[in-house]
Amino acid sequence: MNDVVSQNIRSHYDKFSSKYQSFLLLDLSLDMTRGKPSPTQLNLSDDLLSLPGTNYQTPQGTDTRNYGILDGLPGIKSLFAELLGVQANQVIVGGNSSLTMMYDTLQRACQFGVPGGDSPWNSEPNRKFLCPTPGYDRHFLITQHLGFELINIDITDTGPDMDQVEWLVKNDPTIKGIWCIPKYSNPTGCCYSPETVKRLAAMPTAATDFRIMWDNAYAEHHFNDNHPELDNIANHSQQTGNENRAIQFASTSKMTLPGAGVAAMAASEENIADAKKHLNVQGIGPDKVNQLRHLQFFGDIAGLRRHMKEHAKQVKPKFDLVDRILHEELSQWNIASWTKPEGGYFISLDVTPGLARKVIELSQKAGVKLTGAGAPFPYV
Amino acid sequence: MNDVVSQNIRSHYDKFSSKYQSFLLLDLSLDMTRGKPSPTQLNLSDDLLSLPGTNYQTPQGTDTRNYGILDGLPGIKSLFAELLGVQANQVIVGGNSSLTMMYDTLQRACQFGVPGGDSPWNSEPNRKFLCPTPGYDRHFLITQHLGFELINIDITDTGPDMDQVEWLVKNDPTIKGIWCIPKYSNPTGCCYSPETVKRLAAMPTAATDFRIMWDNAYAEHHFNDNHPELDNIANHSQQTGNENRAIQFASTSKMTLPGAGVAAMAASEENIADAKKHLNVQGIGPDKVNQLRHLQFFGDIAGLRRHMKEHAKQVKPKFDLVDRILHEELSQWNIASWTKPEGGYFISLDVTPGLARKVIELSQKAGVKLTGAGAPFPYV
Repeated sequence: MNDVVSQNIRSHYDKFSSKYQSFLLLDLSLDMTRGKPSPTQLNLSDDLLSLPGTNYQTPQGTDTRNYGILDGLPGIKSLFAELLGVQANQVIVGGNSSLTMMYDTLQRACQFGVPGGDSPWNSEPNRKFLCPTPGYDRHFLITQHLGFELINIDITDTGPDMDQVEWLVKNDPTIKGIWCIPKYSNPTGCCYSPETVKRLAAMPTAATDFRIMWDNAYAEHHFNDNHPELDNIANHSQQTGNENRAIQFASTSKMTLPGAGVAAMAASEENIADAKKHLNVQGIGPDKVNQLRHLQFFGDIAGLRRHMKEHAKQVKPKFDLVDRILHEELSQWNIASWTKPEGGYFISLDVTPGLARKVIELSQKAGVKLTGAGAPFPYV
Repeated sequence: MNDVVSQNIRSHYDKFSSKYQSFLLLDLSLDMTRGKPSPTQLNLSDDLLSLPGTNYQTPQGTDTRNYGILDGLPGIKSLFAELLGVQANQVIVGGNSSLTMMYDTLQRACQFGVPGGDSPWNSEPNRKFLCPTPGYDRHFLITQHLGFELINIDITDTGPDMDQVEWLVKNDPTIKGIWCIPKYSNPTGCCYSPETVKRLAAMPTAATDFRIMWDNAYAEHHFNDNHPELDNIANHSQQTGNENRAIQFASTSKMTLPGAGVAAMAASEENIADAKKHLNVQGIGPDKVNQLRHLQFFGDIAGLRRHMKEHAKQVKPKFDLVDRILHEELSQWNIASWTKPEGGYFISLDVTPGLARKVIELSQKAGVKLTGAGAPFPYV
C-alpha cells in the first residue's frame, strides 16, 4: 500500500472514529431489535385505556364481562374478516398474541393432525417446514421447537422463490407447510406479487395436509395512500380446490398496544371447526372485554384505517430519515445495500460479508441495540 | 297397593304437579350449569373497566403498553405468590384463563416432557391420569383429549381417597399425575385436610415425573370469616424432596370478571424455568395492561380479600336459601343428599339412582339449566 492510500485510509478512519466517539457521548439507549412502536405511537391509543367504562355490553346485548363465546365477539370477528378478506364465520378472534395463535395452530397439528391429513404431524419424525429467508426469527423458532427441520427458501422482491417452493412441495410429503409474511415482509419489506399468491394457492403438494402460515401482520401498515395491494389467498385457495391450505393471522399489536391488543386467525370453515373443537378443550374463551374495547375504539374498518394513517404520519418520516442517512453515509463506499419498504416495521441492511457482527457490536456499545446478525436465518 | 296408599301417592303427585306447573308459569331463564357469577357480582368490579386510564406505568416505571416481560408484572407476581404461599420467582402470571395454563402445561409435558422425566409424555401410549370424582369436567376433558386414560378416585370429605391414590401411583409408572381442586372442590365443596395435602406431597410415585395439577381456583372464595385453612402443598413438596411435583393454578375469573381476569401458575424454580423456556417460543408475553389494571384495582392481598368479602355477602345468602329449600322440600322423603360447602361455587346434589336425568330434564323445561347428570364423572 503506498503512502498516499495509507494516509487517505487513516484520515477516513480518524474521521469516522471521531464521529463514533461523538455518538458514544450521546449516551443513547435505543432498542431496535424488534418492531416496537414508540411511546408517541402508543399515545394514539390512550383512549383505549379507559374503555369500555360502563358500556360493557355489545350492541347485541351481550354482557362481555361474563363467561362464554369461544371464538370472539361477532363485531370484532366482522372487523378482522374485512381486514383479511374472508367471511366472519371463517374467523376466530383470540387473546393478545397472533404468534401464540400460530404456535397453538402448529402444536395442535403436531398433536392431533389437521383436516386433509391422516395422522398427527408428530407421527412424521422427519417433518419439515419451508422458511423464506431472511425472515422472522420467531416463526422459525416455533417450527424448530416443535421438531421440524427448517428449509431455507430465497426471498425475492415478489415473495419466496416460487420455483424452489413448487419443486420441493411437489416431491416431498414430509414438508408440511411454509411461513409467509405476505405484506411488508419482516425484514425485507417485500410484498408478495399476485403471481406469487396464486402459485402458493394452486401448487400441487405431496403432503395432503400442507398449510400456509399466512402472517398478515402488517396488512394495514402502509406509509402512503398509494400502497401495494395484496391478492386474496383465501379466494385463490378456494378456487383451486385447496381451501384448507391457507391459515391467515393478524393482530392489533402494532395498531393499538403491543401485548394488550387482539389477535385473530382466519381459514376455511373446516379448519375453523377443527380449531374450535380443540379450543373448546383449551379454555373457556378469549378476553371479550378487550375485544369490545377495541371495537369501540376503532368503530369499523374505516376507523381502523384512519387510525393507521396516524401511525404512518409518525413512522414514515423515521424510515425516510434512515434511508437518507444510509444514502449520505454509505452509498459512496459500495459496502452496503438496504431495502426501502412502503410499509411495515423493518429495513433490512446487507453489508460486506463478515461485517454485520462488527456493526451490531459497535452500535450496541453506542447504546443502539440491533437485531442479532443471523437472526433472520434459521440455524444461524 | 291398597286404596289408601294409592290415594296418598296420587294426592302428593297432584300437589307436586301443580307446584311444578306454577314454576313453568314463572317463565324462568337461569343457567346454573357453570360457576357463573351474577351481574350484581360483576358490578363489584366495574371500576376495573375504566382502568388504568392515563396511569399505565408500573410503580417501577415500566410502560405496560409495550412489548416485553414474559412472566408477568412483578407486582402481580407478588400478589399471586401471597395467594398461593410461594415466592414471587416461583410464579408466572399469564393471560385470562387458568384452564388454558393447565392445558398448556400438560400439552407441553406431552410434547417435550418435564423436569424429572426422561421423555415426552406422548412417548408413553398408555399414559394415565388420576381424577378424583365427582370432579370438574373441564379438567377431565383436557387429559382425555391429550390421550390419557382417566382413572376414577373416590373423593371424600377430606379430599381424594389417599389409600387408593398411594397404592396406584406407587405401582404404575404410566400414571403421570392427578387433578386436584383442594379448596371448595368442584362440585362437592370439600376441602383437602392437612393429612391429605401431606400425603400427596410425600407419597412415593413410580413415575419420576409425576405432577399434581393443583387448581386452587377458590382459594379466597369463603362464605365466612371462620373458614378452613388449606395446607401449603409447595412447602410439603419441598420438605419431602418432591419440589417439582405440585403445579398450582389460580385466577381472578371469579374475583373480578370471568374471561377478562388474570391467571397464574406457581411451581418450583426448575418447573418455572422449564415453562418459561417454552413460553419464550409460544409468544411475546401476557397482557400486562390487564395485569396492571388488576393490580391497581386490588391494591394488595388485603384489598383482594376485602373484595372477596363483598362477593361472599352476595353469594352466601343464595347458598343458605338453596340449603333451606332443599331441607324443607326433600329431607322428609329420604331420596336426596347434598353438600353444604363453606365457600366456592357449587352444591352437589345426589338423588336416588336413575333420577338425576329426570330432575335435570324437568328443571330444563322450567327454564333452569343444571349441569349434565354425568358431567362430574369421566366417561359418563
